[in-house]
Amino acid sequence: MADLVSGNAAIGQSGGPTAVINQSLVGVIEGLKKGLCETGHAKRIFGMRHGVRGIVKAGAEGLVDLASIPSDRLERIAHTPSAALGSTRDKPDEAYCQKILDGCRTHDIRYFFYIGGNDSADTCRIVSEKAASAGYDLRCFHVPKTIDNDLLENDHTPGFPSAARYVTLALMGDALDNASLGGIKINVIMGRNAGFLTAAASLARGAASNGASPADRAPPHLIYLPEVPFSTDAFLAEVESVYAKLGRCQIAVSEGIRDEKGEEIGPKLMRGPGEIDAHGNVQLSGSGALGDGLADLVKTGLTPKGGKAPRVRADTFGYIQRCWPHPSSVDAEEARAVGRYAAELATKGDRSASVIILRTSNAPEAYRSAIGRADLSAVARRTRHVPPEFISGSNDVSAAFHAYCRPLVGELPTMERL
Amino acid sequence: MADLVSGNAAIGQSGGPTAVINQSLVGVIEGLKKGLCETGHAKRIFGMRHGVRGIVKAGAEGLVDLASIPSDRLERIAHTPSAALGSTRDKPDEAYCQKILDGCRTHDIRYFFYIGGNDSADTCRIVSEKAASAGYDLRCFHVPKTIDNDLLENDHTPGFPSAARYVTLALMGDALDNASLGGIKINVIMGRNAGFLTAAASLARGAASNGASPADRAPPHLIYLPEVPFSTDAFLAEVESVYAKLGRCQIAVSEGIRDEKGEEIGPKLMRGPGEIDAHGNVQLSGSGALGDGLADLVKTGLTPKGGKAPRVRADTFGYIQRCWPHPSSVDAEEARAVGRYAAELATKGDRSASVIILRTSNAPEAYRSAIGRADLSAVARRTRHVPPEFISGSNDVSAAFHAYCRPLVGELPTMERL
Repeated sequence: MADLVSGNAAIGQSGGPTAVINQSLVGVIEGLKKGLCETGHAKRIFGMRHGVRGIVKAGAEGLVDLASIPSDRLERIAHTPSAALGSTRDKPDEAYCQKILDGCRTHDIRYFFYIGGNDSADTCRIVSEKAASAGYDLRCFHVPKTIDNDLLENDHTPGFPSAARYVTLALMGDALDNASLGGIKINVIMGRNAGFLTAAASLARGAASNGASPADRAPPHLIYLPEVPFSTDAFLAEVESVYAKLGRCQIAVSEGIRDEKGEEIGPKLMRGPGEIDAHGNVQLSGSGALGDGLADLVKTGLTPKGGKAPRVRADTFGYIQRCWPHPSSVDAEEARAVGRYAAELATKGDRSASVIILRTSNAPEAYRSAIGRADLSAVARRTRHVPPEFISGSNDVSAAFHAYCRPLVGELPTMERL
Repeated sequence: MADLVSGNAAIGQSGGPTAVINQSLVGVIEGLKKGLCETGHAKRIFGMRHGVRGIVKAGAEGLVDLASIPSDRLERIAHTPSAALGSTRDKPDEAYCQKILDGCRTHDIRYFFYIGGNDSADTCRIVSEKAASAGYDLRCFHVPKTIDNDLLENDHTPGFPSAARYVTLALMGDALDNASLGGIKINVIMGRNAGFLTAAASLARGAASNGASPADRAPPHLIYLPEVPFSTDAFLAEVESVYAKLGRCQIAVSEGIRDEKGEEIGPKLMRGPGEIDAHGNVQLSGSGALGDGLADLVKTGLTPKGGKAPRVRADTFGYIQRCWPHPSSVDAEEARAVGRYAAELATKGDRSASVIILRTSNAPEAYRSAIGRADLSAVARRTRHVPPEFISGSNDVSAAFHAYCRPLVGELPTMERL
């Protein structure tokens, strides 16, 4: 018999929602019902409203009962995008984590599950440490979630494959739109610190570019990641070269592109002053400012061909890319599995862990993954970046990235051209 | 036997592409093969590269052979979004139309099919008239296409249902994203002169709002169409009222909103000078400027609640909404049917027509449409607007609009909330 404690369980969702974060929520509930509820160690399953905000609230209105939801309704919730419990952008510090621990004591919570990114893992870590030093037996589990795919220890993270699928489909359609009318098309994609989602735009090509020069690649012709220093001069020259040859150019660019000093390009190009968020960063998402700035740059910087300025358009992929209602099926399954696994770890007597996804096979048509565990400190607060082997030159991704990402997004439509 | 002429046929695609414009292309080809090719009146089927640009080009490089494409490849083209032949923004005047007629003579084209909006219908009309006065027997057919849904005589136009489906799905996901993190979310939707596509955002509610006040509606809480004069003061008051009650507010706004003088709001709110297009309009699509301007307006105009400014985000739905690879199935079928019907009209000896879609049944679960014809002059250059019976107050659509639009977008996912 595992070393278990008796009390209640609580589950929360944090950070930017994804298309499959509710799969993970339902996975935890299922795993608890089959495990700790069955053995009698978990009496109630609470949902925290808006993440840790729900548990630091006085009284019980920040908590909802999840155990009584019928399984057919749970299934519908699992298939609904965005965080069903509500989410929060709060990144708890030591004092905030103390309040979380106090909330756990108040409601006799002994099993704490937090679905989110590296900040959520850090919240789990701090709360877990505080509980240990206070002698309060609290088991803390981080369930991974982020469209940015930037968690260490994970092959990839739930949420990313669905967002990557959206980006791929969008770029596929947009490439044909661009081909039909010509001109320069800039697509700004989410991912402030990690370029995985922007890199996924390359899947729209159908096959890896294998080092072809920009104009010889299937679109997108140019891909700019935050991991590669961005030079506006090089950008203009690269766009001009593709446009001169093809009369069109499709570009995928991360919202987080930076110059060689590591300074973000976005704020430098904006037409007006940007909004500074709570973390001191200029707001990039939910605004078309970077795309419009890049378009302005191209419009003024490019030599007109025969006196005719090119048609330049910019689309900024907003919140739709993370909450589109049709997720990748691989993603939906894995998101459910990581939630279930977190509950299983708890049932086995694990005291704290971050659940991770590992790839066990990447043979063509035979992608398989497994779920495992890592220590919270290995994931907490740390950011994974697109590794050098996934990058090709200054404006493309490698065949290795294609092999890595393609199995995650699921079946793609076939496009036929004349 | 119909009064027919012998020669070649030519098909072109014009204006902004849609997800199903290639269905119409393939429909015309199919209809010709079963009709005029079978009877020997159409010898060759040309595709015009980039619309009428292809036919005014010297030599034959602007034309491609469409008759020899195998049917399985045609089927794949039909399922591919955007204009397979390439498109054009050219709006031919009298002199340009003379060149088109000259091109038809050069290539012995006797059947001219143009897939596009009201400008394409006008091109057909002028070319048809010029041919008649020159004594050249040319049969001209306009095949409807526009995501704006702004063609007269039509119940709706091919391309609109698929774009409306994209907008609906996007708003469904976005509403849950907005609910999970709160704040004010502005979604800018295409349609400079007609608000049908923006109105389609209302389908995300699942049911008609039936005159509920903004905060009591399922999201989107506020919908602003170009047909209803937009007042920034009223807008701010309406947003503030919803936000005060719910802590969030989801807004769908047309890129073409205008003040009571009929002047566009977009250019007034932009942070920098906008680009003026060939038609003297400030560029609205392919830029986040209007969304950012509206967000700025809300950020500066709203009274902070307890000193805390609301989170305001704007997404501008760009070209993705018109070329998303998964169309509405109703749209795909009808787009094929209008193309086929145009070829059938030609086979029957019709000399010029615009193909139209009529609704024959709108009983629940029993939507049916039929294809018919109208004179080119009834469609050419004229714009249909959202009729008063589809509008409810200053910021919503009516139950009649819901009944009209719902059958067009196809099956929608079920969203379950806690």
